[in-house]
Amino acid sequence: MTSLPLRKKRYSLSDSLTELTLLSPTAMQNSHRYCVVMCGGVGSRFWPYSRAHRPKQFIDFFGTGRSLLQMSYDRILPLVPKENIIFVTNADYAPLVREQLPEITDDQILLEPARRNTAPCIAWAAYHIAARDPQASMIVAPSDHLITREREFEKAVLTGFEFVETHDALLTMGIRPVRPETGYGYIQVGEPVTENINLVKTFTEKPELELAKVFLQSGEFFWNSGIFLWSARAIIDAFHRHSPGLAAMFDSAGDIFGTPGEGQWIQNNFPGCISISIDYAVMEKAPNVYVEKVNFGWNDLGTWSALYDNSPKNRDSNVTQNCRVLAYNSTGNIFAVNSTDKLVVVDSLRDYIIADSGDVLLICPKSEEQRIKQMVNDARQHFDDKYL
Amino acid sequence: MTSLPLRKKRYSLSDSLTELTLLSPTAMQNSHRYCVVMCGGVGSRFWPYSRAHRPKQFIDFFGTGRSLLQMSYDRILPLVPKENIIFVTNADYAPLVREQLPEITDDQILLEPARRNTAPCIAWAAYHIAARDPQASMIVAPSDHLITREREFEKAVLTGFEFVETHDALLTMGIRPVRPETGYGYIQVGEPVTENINLVKTFTEKPELELAKVFLQSGEFFWNSGIFLWSARAIIDAFHRHSPGLAAMFDSAGDIFGTPGEGQWIQNNFPGCISISIDYAVMEKAPNVYVEKVNFGWNDLGTWSALYDNSPKNRDSNVTQNCRVLAYNSTGNIFAVNSTDKLVVVDSLRDYIIADSGDVLLICPKSEEQRIKQMVNDARQHFDDKYL
Repeated sequence: MTSLPLRKKRYSLSDSLTELTLLSPTAMQNSHRYCVVMCGGVGSRFWPYSRAHRPKQFIDFFGTGRSLLQMSYDRILPLVPKENIIFVTNADYAPLVREQLPEITDDQILLEPARRNTAPCIAWAAYHIAARDPQASMIVAPSDHLITREREFEKAVLTGFEFVETHDALLTMGIRPVRPETGYGYIQVGEPVTENINLVKTFTEKPELELAKVFLQSGEFFWNSGIFLWSARAIIDAFHRHSPGLAAMFDSAGDIFGTPGEGQWIQNNFPGCISISIDYAVMEKAPNVYVEKVNFGWNDLGTWSALYDNSPKNRDSNVTQNCRVLAYNSTGNIFAVNSTDKLVVVDSLRDYIIADSGDVLLICPKSEEQRIKQMVNDARQHFDDKYL
Repeated sequence: MTSLPLRKKRYSLSDSLTELTLLSPTAMQNSHRYCVVMCGGVGSRFWPYSRAHRPKQFIDFFGTGRSLLQMSYDRILPLVPKENIIFVTNADYAPLVREQLPEITDDQILLEPARRNTAPCIAWAAYHIAARDPQASMIVAPSDHLITREREFEKAVLTGFEFVETHDALLTMGIRPVRPETGYGYIQVGEPVTENINLVKTFTEKPELELAKVFLQSGEFFWNSGIFLWSARAIIDAFHRHSPGLAAMFDSAGDIFGTPGEGQWIQNNFPGCISISIDYAVMEKAPNVYVEKVNFGWNDLGTWSALYDNSPKNRDSNVTQNCRVLAYNSTGNIFAVNSTDKLVVVDSLRDYIIADSGDVLLICPKSEEQRIKQMVNDARQHFDDKYL
């Protein structure tokens, strides 16, 4: 992979950062900057804590009073004009988004009539934003991750925006790994471009533990966070080059984006899109892919075991999400209950998930969590759709 | 133990039973017959399914739509005039009794200002009833047991009433054992008096398993059910002989029973009673104690393990009280949930109690259930009284 010619002179990050630290975040807001928050997932790996009618991004996962979606919104609000924050979600979740974020307007919510993975979702958002502002730059972020160091996140996003606004670049955020994690994809960095931004050398699937240890030691590999920045123009160009079928579909809409006809057009055409991730459709093919090396306390909250491994533990090595626990002769468990007031008493339980959503209780060894999808299917088949 | 002289000639049960079967239960009601339902227990062994604010007798234990208390009332209603059914309970539970049995009147509820075990409770009820009707006979029964064969129960109670109305007898119901149960007290029968009634030879505490097996095989031992019949006169006489302090206390009230002053007198004096069971205070001392050998599908619902052992099991040998269960690789468990609509999904759990009361969830091996009392104390100490 080689660097494409840059549209402007080489970007000087050190100058820029000096400026950034002198300006308040709000002053840094740029009316051409947009955020696309993807919040349509079902989060079935966290069933029953995460439910089809209220997936994990809509849950107050840490008992802080704000859901993961609300935390995502809070995090981006200092960085992007409020009206430029766009939420892409499944049509079923529109009421939840409106309920949790009453301050946003309906034209900030893009409702997918069907689930088609991230590439069609991002393509729609890019066409939508480009129609509104051809000079737009955008950050695309999932809504169900945890980011603990907000100030570092803000710096990283501002650096990223400045980069993609001055380069024909698809920028992905690579998290500096802190352990040999086997559950994430890795990005191998190539030639440095600025202090924190490199060309991407390779994308690597989830490695075995031994390989993950080598990745960690090498210093060349970063976790693939699924957070992207680019200009609307750059990502639309990339769809044309690397996913031409998808681009042709959205091109065929002509000038419909940003007009009252957009919703109906999407209703008719979006379900016909190929279901494919942005990684497969674009990022692994494009030559102008860069990685910003960041370290802002990120966790993708992907599995119970990963959540357990990365959560603070009490004296008994138990993790408690949002509930009161009395544990006897019990270690290595994770307790997740949708009620801060509920008391859970356990005796002689080791390395289990105990998740209670009010109408569903799951008790399952952490080592068996891959069965949860089957359990959800069985619950539907034997009992009722309401348990999904 | 020897038989006291009988007040009437030897009772002929076979004649009597012929009559009984020809008469409807209602026709058998006798205005001198009373029932005392004891319903003041806290049921802490079934925590958190049974809670201090709603102990097990007030719970719809089997999801039938009727609580154990209501089932006790339904069971006795054909046998005793409705207005002669007296409920003795803790003052805290008066609202629950009124709510669950709206058809009874306040003068049918005796409210104990303090818990003093069964002897003071029964003494009060006996003095109260004797004041109302010196010729009264009474059945005393707990409200938190299960009786599955109602017709057999009715026959046994009518037989018992006829016996105690014609003999100076304290009659206890002995359940014909169906397994070598180590959790119950046993009654060894002595000389037969009628077809189903014998003198009592001994009362025996909970035996070890080997001894329980001998008891079962011998045919001489019956489970002590805690259901008693006697005339008010006979039990008051027995208190005078075998628990004179208690008798003196109630004698000191003079003519207060059945008058508006009774409640205040109890309020002032009942807490000063000795806390002692009727077994220790009277039954194990009196010579005129008889046992009626009965077999009406009785279970004292005393422990989770006993409930498990005596409940119907599904294919996986799990017992489900009142909830929906999906079990994977899980056997020998008992599930008790205060919501028929809740789904419980378990993986890799063997021989556990899973009890969910809404605000408390307990997961505990059946073999550790003796710890539950300690857990309740810990919940109070570490968190809040509301979890009791």
